[in-house]
Parts: sequence; structure tokens; C-alpha cells
Amino acid sequence: MDTQGKTITCQAAIAWGKNSISIEEVQVEPPKTGEVRIKLISSGICGTDDHVLKGELPMKFPLVPGHEGAGIVESIGNGVSSVKPGDKVLTLIIPQCGECSFCLHPKGNFCDKQDVLPCSGLMLDGTSRFSCKGEKIYHSFRVSTFTEYTVVPEIAVAKIDAASPMDKVCLISCGVPTGYGAAVRSAKVTPGSTCVVYGLGGVGSAIVMGCKASGASRIIGVDINEEKFPRARALGVTDCLNPRALQKPVQEVVMEMTGIGVDFAFEAIGHIETMVSAWNSCNNSYGVCVIIGVASPDSKLCLEAIKIITGKTLKGVCLGDYKTRDCIPQIVSDYLQNKINIDPLVTHQLPFKQLHKALELYHAGKTIRCVLLF
Amino acid sequence: MDTQGKTITCQAAIAWGKNSISIEEVQVEPPKTGEVRIKLISSGICGTDDHVLKGELPMKFPLVPGHEGAGIVESIGNGVSSVKPGDKVLTLIIPQCGECSFCLHPKGNFCDKQDVLPCSGLMLDGTSRFSCKGEKIYHSFRVSTFTEYTVVPEIAVAKIDAASPMDKVCLISCGVPTGYGAAVRSAKVTPGSTCVVYGLGGVGSAIVMGCKASGASRIIGVDINEEKFPRARALGVTDCLNPRALQKPVQEVVMEMTGIGVDFAFEAIGHIETMVSAWNSCNNSYGVCVIIGVASPDSKLCLEAIKIITGKTLKGVCLGDYKTRDCIPQIVSDYLQNKINIDPLVTHQLPFKQLHKALELYHAGKTIRCVLLF
Repeated sequence: MDTQGKTITCQAAIAWGKNSISIEEVQVEPPKTGEVRIKLISSGICGTDDHVLKGELPMKFPLVPGHEGAGIVESIGNGVSSVKPGDKVLTLIIPQCGECSFCLHPKGNFCDKQDVLPCSGLMLDGTSRFSCKGEKIYHSFRVSTFTEYTVVPEIAVAKIDAASPMDKVCLISCGVPTGYGAAVRSAKVTPGSTCVVYGLGGVGSAIVMGCKASGASRIIGVDINEEKFPRARALGVTDCLNPRALQKPVQEVVMEMTGIGVDFAFEAIGHIETMVSAWNSCNNSYGVCVIIGVASPDSKLCLEAIKIITGKTLKGVCLGDYKTRDCIPQIVSDYLQNKINIDPLVTHQLPFKQLHKALELYHAGKTIRCVLLF
Repeated sequence: MDTQGKTITCQAAIAWGKNSISIEEVQVEPPKTGEVRIKLISSGICGTDDHVLKGELPMKFPLVPGHEGAGIVESIGNGVSSVKPGDKVLTLIIPQCGECSFCLHPKGNFCDKQDVLPCSGLMLDGTSRFSCKGEKIYHSFRVSTFTEYTVVPEIAVAKIDAASPMDKVCLISCGVPTGYGAAVRSAKVTPGSTCVVYGLGGVGSAIVMGCKASGASRIIGVDINEEKFPRARALGVTDCLNPRALQKPVQEVVMEMTGIGVDFAFEAIGHIETMVSAWNSCNNSYGVCVIIGVASPDSKLCLEAIKIITGKTLKGVCLGDYKTRDCIPQIVSDYLQNKINIDPLVTHQLPFKQLHKALELYHAGKTIRCVLLF
């Protein structure tokens, strides 16, 4: 059936409010000018999605969640030239418009056209493409992926190699570059260095991979779920710490283990407490603390001001500091050429209809990434 | 008179407590092993000294303040090999022991043997070289310079060119490298970039010089004392802002002036409020905020956690990130060769006995640097 130009009725998850998600029949309008409609093949479940579902981010409900998607272009709106129907693509939570001050600058990637801070929940023209029972449904970050079909701006689509295994590469939409890039591009982890990674989920695991690829000699992994430790060790973690099993604050243990504190600390959880622990795990002189986790909007990261001047660095990073459309396809190619192996991160795959089971596995800490398959 | 090996009685300023300073007759013991006794020729008055005198830092009173000193070696203790009596030297608030993990690492300069965080007020062997009327007097940062003679560890002494004009080069002991290095080494200001400098005193002025030398196209200077603006403009500031004369928060004005926020922001005051303004003056994607001012020890710098992940960087820096003994003498040489001009920073020179007048000029914001001459 030719669906081009027509509204598609399909299955999508709708978060109606905080902790209230169900799969519904939705209508997905055709893409407008500069937009692309994608038939999803797979979507990861990322920690940021969990923050959205718990109502911890300033998002408008009801919305179609998810952002880590891989799919095939179903149709394109006017003016779209970089992809065509049938192309394999990834969705990008940080677009690359190529025109704003941030895209034009050699450093950074926080494109002015992103819908993360603040979140409008709408496409660039201020309207939505989703509806359910006649009600308008908001997008999440302009890349909703817990749905059989989605519409995203062309600038938030990365065309990838036709040989890409679509049941896995969705991780390269967000989790893999977010973590790997935090280590290799943002922190610029050096050979022989010491690292600590707070949070050993999908992003944390990709950070570990980046630290190992950069030649770090010691990688301390921190998580309250010890079930994650064997997989973390397999990826390169040399020491595992469960803060709840320690007699003193975890940063004090890290300090004792390393003598002076680590060279590089990473926070991939999104909690203030662990951000402060990461900061205090760094050595005073040249330690670098990289914040990857998304904190709730009303929370503040408070640091002892007098200790900042000793030379430490605090860096934030989203999507691994990659200019997304330029760089993400290359990471897929690197995966296809066995230069980077994302397979260990895909611990579970479930049909989209088992979304609730997938979320349960996530909450139980059983997964690095559970991939939803459509 | 040969003073070697003997206690010297001379004039020194003593801070007896908060806001209580007087010039007294003190006894300065001979240098012990690894120490150097210096006859001061000049000393700058730095903002950090003012914090000390106001009791805003965790220092032990009574103490001999000052840290930005230039002098001539009077005598040396056992084992001292890098300087000899008669050498011209600068005192270093951050030493370079050459042996600790921080000195051995290519990055950073926060030598483990510093006495800034925490401050013991004592020499490395845990004792003091100063006394007054039989009472032990503490050192400040192991480099007290508001005194005719001081004793400092050899690792906190930089031997400088014999041709150095001693009435000016004391600024290269601290203020000049602190500010200049913050711009050129820590922030790595890029050609054509936009910068904002909070605080246009000695350090702030040196930051401006560093930004200009790096080719910044716009340098916004912020100070509540408009008397500083003409000198700031002469050094390279393109736009001057007095926050008290604005109708809205200064960071909002900076944001409007630059469209997206500056590339590089510097805080050279040591107040939490201006640190937050500096942070919020940076652009979200690749902005770098460098903290140089020393905050009071109980204060916390609180940042909106969710906004960190957009890619911004917060860096602390002390003494311009220079490995001090290796680099400071070179800055003096650069000055002698007209590669860097510190003369505009020396706005006042007064005899040491006029310390109170010098402090009055400092508090009135009349000076960039007032140099005390012994």
C-alpha cells in the first residue's frame, strides 16, 4: 500500500503523564517541508527516556517517548534532499542544522534547532504530527521512537550504510556516541590514565569502551547494581564499586585507591549526588569530570568554590560532542568494519508490544540496552 | 654586616586578626635545610591578600601577609643548590617540588607541597621562621612578602634574570601569570573569539592582555568601579559594563551583546555571584568559563545541573596553569625582551611603610597594582 502523503494509523506508546504509559493506535501525519517520516525497525531504551516517563524533565504530556531509533525512510516532505524513501537512517536527539552559530563553529554540537532545552514537544513549525483519538500528542525531543512510524526534521536524521544490522545500530543513534564520545572526544582520555565511571548502564558501558580504547590503565566502575559488574569487567572495568556496600563515601574510596584521585571521572546517571561524587573523585590539579547524565531541571550542582581553583575541569557533553549528521554515520561504518563493537551492549531484544516488560527489565537493572523491535 | 646564619630583626606587617594589620619589628630566623632567606625589594598587593586580611580564608593569625614578591637571596639553608646569595628571585605561591604526582604529570601545576589548600601557615617542617615580641607569627602560603626579609622553601623560589627591574617584576610572581596564563594556557583563547572578564584589577587586567595577545576580537570588561574602564580599554577591553548601572543582570546584557554568549568567560574576583554570572555569560555549546578568583571556603558555586550537558566547560586555574619554577623565569625574560608588557599594570608604587595608604588605594579601586617598595 502506498502511504506517501497519507496519514498512517499505527501502534505507538503514549506517555499520558508521569508513570502512565500505554500502547495505543495513533495517527501519524505525512511529513511537512523539511521533514522525514520513518518506519522504525528498532529503538533502544535510554536512561533519559526513563527520566521522561517519570516526569523528571520539563516535557509536555501526552507524548510519544523514545529517541534512540533506527528505521527506514517511508516518505519525505518537500525540500528534503539528503535522504529518500528506503534509506536506512538513525534518529538524532541533537540535530545538525548546519546553519546556526553552534553548527558553524568547529567546537561543540548543541545545535540551536534541538528540542531538549527547552522542550516544546513540537516540530520546528510549532505543530505535532501525532494524534490519538483526535487528541494532539506531543513529540519527545522531535525524535519520538516508541512508535511504528515517526516524523522527524531532516536535520535530525542520519543516513547510514545500507548493510547496517537494524536490530542493533539504534544504539549508535544515542547511547554509544554519547558514552564513547564523552571519553574520546570530550574528556580526551589519555593512555595510562585512571578513570572512574559512575553508572554502568548503556551510556556508562560505552564510556568504559571509550576509556579502554583510549588506553586507560585503570577503569573504576561504580553502580548500586552488582549484577552489572561481570559485563562491565568484560568491557574493560578493572575495579567495581557498589557505594551501598562501602563503609565510607565512594569518592573517598576512589581517592584511597588512586592516591590522588582519578584523571577522568564520568557521571552517566543524572543524579546530583553522583555528580558531586564524580567531581570529588578527580585529582585536584588536572582532574577532568565529565557530566553526561541529565539532571532534573530544578536541581543544582553545588561545588565547593574554593577548591575549583586548584585546576580541575567540569565539562558537560551531549551526544559525545559529535556534530551528529557528520559523525554518526561514520560510527556505524566503524562498527561494520569491526573498529568498534557495540554487540555486548545489546543484552536484550523484545518486540515493541512487550514495552512494559522491557521497562521492567530496565528498572530491575537487568539490561545494558534492551532493544525494542518493530 | 654578615647576617648569614643569624636571626635578622627587621620591619614586617603583621595581620593580628581580621582587619587588624600593623607594621612591627619582627625576628626572621635563618633558613633551614631546603629553605631560602630573601631580602624583599618589592611586593604587589593582590586581591587574595585582601581576602586574607579580611579573614575570608582559613588562615591562622597572627601572620605576615603578602605573596607577590621580588627580592634578592640573602642566605640559603643546607642543600639549596638552585639559588645562591645575591640572586634575584620571585616568590611562588604555588611551588614546584618536581617530585609529587602533580609536578611529575605534564598537565596541571597544583604541587602537593603548596600551602594554599589547606593553609598550615608553617614551613614544610611544621615550624615558623617569624616571631614578634616572642610570639610565633604564621607565614601566609609559605611566601609572606609584606616584610623586609622572608624565608621560603627553595621549591617556592624562581631565579630570574639579573637585569630584571625589581620595582616591577614582583607582578610576575603572581598576578601576571595568573591572569595571562588563564587566558592563553587554561582557556586557550582563540583568534576572533569573544571574551568577558569579570573584575578589572591586576589579575583581570592580565587576563585582558592574554585575551588580546590570543587575538580575541571582542573583550567585554565588567567592574563596578568605572574608574578602571579607561585603563582597561587601553589594555584591550572593547566594551565596559558596570553591573550596577545596568537595568538587567549583567549576564543577560552579555548574552544580548553577543547573541549566543561568549566563547570564554573569566572570573577574577572571588565572589560566587560573579562566578555564576561568568558561567551564564558563556554560550551553551562550547563556552568555557574559567574561575581564577579565590572564593571564601564555606561558599558553594551552584549551577543549574540540566544546563551543564549542553557542552559548556568550567575550569579552575591557579597561577595560570604554569609549572612555576619552569615557566615564571621565562615570563620575566619575555618582559625584558618586550614580548609582554607589564608596565601598564603597575599604576602605583609606595614605600612599604605606607602600607596602609596602599591598602586604602586598593580598596578605593584606584590601582591596578600598587607595588610596595622596601
